Amino acid sequence: MTTKEILLSAKEAKTAFASITAEQKNEALAAMADALEQEAEEILTQNRLDLEAAKGTVSDVMLDRLMLTMDRIRGMADGIRDVIQLPDPVGRILTERTITDGLNLKKVSVPLGVVAIIYESRPNVTSDAAALCLKSGNVCILRGGKEAYRTSKSVVNAMRKGLRSVGLLEELINIVDDTTRASAQELMQARGYVDLLIPRGGAGLIRACVENATVPCIETGTGICSIYVDSSADLPKALKIINNAKTQRPSVCNAEETLLVNEQIAAAFLPDLKQLLVDQRIAEGNPPVELRLCEKALAIIPGTPAVSQDFDTEFLDYILAVKIVKDVREAVEHIARHSTHHSEAILTQDMNAADYFTTHVDSAALYVNASTRFTDGGMFGLGCEMGISTQKLHARGPMGLEELTSYKYIVTGDGQIRS
Amino acid sequence: MTTKEILLSAKEAKTAFASITAEQKNEALAAMADALEQEAEEILTQNRLDLEAAKGTVSDVMLDRLMLTMDRIRGMADGIRDVIQLPDPVGRILTERTITDGLNLKKVSVPLGVVAIIYESRPNVTSDAAALCLKSGNVCILRGGKEAYRTSKSVVNAMRKGLRSVGLLEELINIVDDTTRASAQELMQARGYVDLLIPRGGAGLIRACVENATVPCIETGTGICSIYVDSSADLPKALKIINNAKTQRPSVCNAEETLLVNEQIAAAFLPDLKQLLVDQRIAEGNPPVELRLCEKALAIIPGTPAVSQDFDTEFLDYILAVKIVKDVREAVEHIARHSTHHSEAILTQDMNAADYFTTHVDSAALYVNASTRFTDGGMFGLGCEMGISTQKLHARGPMGLEELTSYKYIVTGDGQIRS
Repeated sequence: MTTKEILLSAKEAKTAFASITAEQKNEALAAMADALEQEAEEILTQNRLDLEAAKGTVSDVMLDRLMLTMDRIRGMADGIRDVIQLPDPVGRILTERTITDGLNLKKVSVPLGVVAIIYESRPNVTSDAAALCLKSGNVCILRGGKEAYRTSKSVVNAMRKGLRSVGLLEELINIVDDTTRASAQELMQARGYVDLLIPRGGAGLIRACVENATVPCIETGTGICSIYVDSSADLPKALKIINNAKTQRPSVCNAEETLLVNEQIAAAFLPDLKQLLVDQRIAEGNPPVELRLCEKALAIIPGTPAVSQDFDTEFLDYILAVKIVKDVREAVEHIARHSTHHSEAILTQDMNAADYFTTHVDSAALYVNASTRFTDGGMFGLGCEMGISTQKLHARGPMGLEELTSYKYIVTGDGQIRS
Repeated sequence: MTTKEILLSAKEAKTAFASITAEQKNEALAAMADALEQEAEEILTQNRLDLEAAKGTVSDVMLDRLMLTMDRIRGMADGIRDVIQLPDPVGRILTERTITDGLNLKKVSVPLGVVAIIYESRPNVTSDAAALCLKSGNVCILRGGKEAYRTSKSVVNAMRKGLRSVGLLEELINIVDDTTRASAQELMQARGYVDLLIPRGGAGLIRACVENATVPCIETGTGICSIYVDSSADLPKALKIINNAKTQRPSVCNAEETLLVNEQIAAAFLPDLKQLLVDQRIAEGNPPVELRLCEKALAIIPGTPAVSQDFDTEFLDYILAVKIVKDVREAVEHIARHSTHHSEAILTQDMNAADYFTTHVDSAALYVNASTRFTDGGMFGLGCEMGISTQKLHARGPMGLEELTSYKYIVTGDGQIRS
């Protein structure tokens, strides 16, 4: 099918959700998960074809992301099953009141309609996104990277088989067959067809979507996350938090990229930091963290001299930019200039400093004495996640099922007119 | 100042809101309203210059919209004072819960940041928008039409005088001095500076913003609103509602443009409709409504034969497109194809038909037995309105103060790390 045909059929299909109950959606999710496992052989076959074609053209990290195993397919199916347990986000009465002239006004949550997701090569995004859209009553249009096309297509085929088995339209879940730039561009500009576009992937993809989309689009992902260690911080806890935020999983968007240290404790703190992130990691056979240090920090511990670009870079690697600041005010100013408004933390025992930080820093998630790594739909109790919004419109931070809904007003009267 | 300089200073100014209390904002609103009245002479002088320059280049309707009087200035000042009474939308705790590992998570409402409003020539938009932005903690950048520039500038000067008189930064309210297309374009593309762009005006302006904006933008306004008269409708009430929705104020977006009539009652209903909207209005010396009728309707009453374009037009005039439909299903299908998703009504005594209609029609406001003219922030109990959103992201329908906020997550711990 052409992308235009898919857009037309997705738009048609969305009316079907008006008469699908929460039970039917859960039945469909169960059938989709089962079908994924039943079709595992076919999915693995297609995945091998993708892997062979991709070899030599993409990095090993990307190959690993792309590769499926029976275990990973089971994980994807279980991911779909997890969504069954979550509360239905549609049909919630958000407010109800009597307005002018005795009219009854209800504000009720409804699906967005058609959600398009442009992503890269992780096959689990295909099943996760489809499951979240189905549960929230949205028709999805998936447009994955060309390296993973055969895999994604076979995953979608399995899920559509699941939909058919419970009597639902397979057009509720769609995948774009054209994997050239043209189809991405077409989705970005499909006004009247796409109600929300969500890019999931690297900074380049997200920028392309935000700059070219004429349909509503949510900016996700990029995280230049900072942690500020205040003069009153509990230093052993601070070391533990920074170690976690930087090294537990450096390739993700909620990992720490910048460390701001109060000048009063820098001389006492930085040597311990280097010991933990560099020396101890080497001793344990782990990759050490490269410390990119401002001039003042370089006078205390050895490391790489930081250049200004280092404070504007999402390293996604074992690299940490370190800067000594005068106080919480300077930390807040630094963050205002360099942050991507994802997640930032203050480590302090001074509640005034914590208040100042959480009030003045304009990011989606602010932490007091905890790791930035908690910014995640599952950790926040949303049960799942469609991505992490770094903008302020509609949804901010982790997007769960409720963030995939809109609302409508229903006003019931008995002949009222406006005077 | 250049538009770039205004963007820079607006971005700087937004941090000031972090330490302004609700009381200070209300004090500022009172001072802004007083200053508007104190500066009335100067505003009227500038308004006369605008009017003289505009004469002959714009329609009489536009000249009337542009014209200020002492009474209208008092009305604008009272409009600002009304905002004082509304609850502060910032700092509301939207959710609070304990998440993983004993972390406390709060979701707190915060301002969006910098809100840019591109509008046409109504001077009251200048003061309304500034007041709503101030109350919601947003720095505003106003960019009005060139016909009203002198007036808007003098209104902004007065409001800034009010801000200074209570010790606040005048940069909280900004007006763009360049009234060429270049400045509108610059606002639409000011990524990193403008957190929300709201176009207020005609369909052309809104389309230009939605298509060219790379900053988050909310589509407002256009309303092709339909009313469906079901076979079970109370016909005298239906006449009253249609008369109100079509003729009370035909130039506004929530006025009715399309009437759908169930075929079972068409022969009984349409003659009375023509009597009320055409004959009686002529007898009373009012402009009659031009009925643009589908073929079946033309067989019942005289009128203009409708062409297909009539069902896709926002007339904003004494014109009504009329179509006979088989049942509520056909009415819903017609609306799906032609509506701008603003407001639609069903007139019926059959609750199943009403349910079917409100469930299946995908518009911001749905009415059962009431006029579409109620879609309005004031009528909905929001106290005010920044525009009516016809899209589904962030805000739908009337946008009040809450719709001018975003939220942040504040997570407080005691050294928690992610495992």
